[in-house]
Amino acid sequence: PDWEIIEQDAVRRLRRVFKFGNFAEALDFTNKTGALAEEAGHHPAILTEYGQVTVTWWSHKIKGLHKNDFIMAAKTDQLLKH
Amino acid sequence: PDWEIIEQDAVRRLRRVFKFGNFAEALDFTNKTGALAEEAGHHPAILTEYGQVTVTWWSHKIKGLHKNDFIMAAKTDQLLKH
Repeated sequence: PDWEIIEQDAVRRLRRVFKFGNFAEALDFTNKTGALAEEAGHHPAILTEYGQVTVTWWSHKIKGLHKNDFIMAAKTDQLLKH
Repeated sequence: PDWEIIEQDAVRRLRRVFKFGNFAEALDFTNKTGALAEEAGHHPAILTEYGQVTVTWWSHKIKGLHKNDFIMAAKTDQLLKH
């Protein structure tokens, strides 16, 4: 499953579920995504669960999706390769 | 706001929202909660956002709340003091 555009609380967002083998690997990906967010000064919602992380990007200021969110989504995908 | 009992996907769960000053502090709390979970072998859902972390405990096996979830909730609260 790739990125989906969803609507939550009347705001369009980009969401993807990333699967992992256990909790520690999921939490590690959460931290990588968090570091990426801090670097960009743009912060997603990151749901960490046993074996999966759900990342949701949207632009708070415009209450919707901006080109930057798609860039951040692509950069999140890149984290899987490290 | 303290712990609330909520029902999500027909499963009763314990949920609390913890507030922080920024993303880094929120992510730090996520990691502390993750370490607690790994130690206990019992894993919550942890939603990390800018300035807040939402922790949700429930028992997967019984699809509901067990005494252990209330203990984990109390231990999560203790993390704020460290």
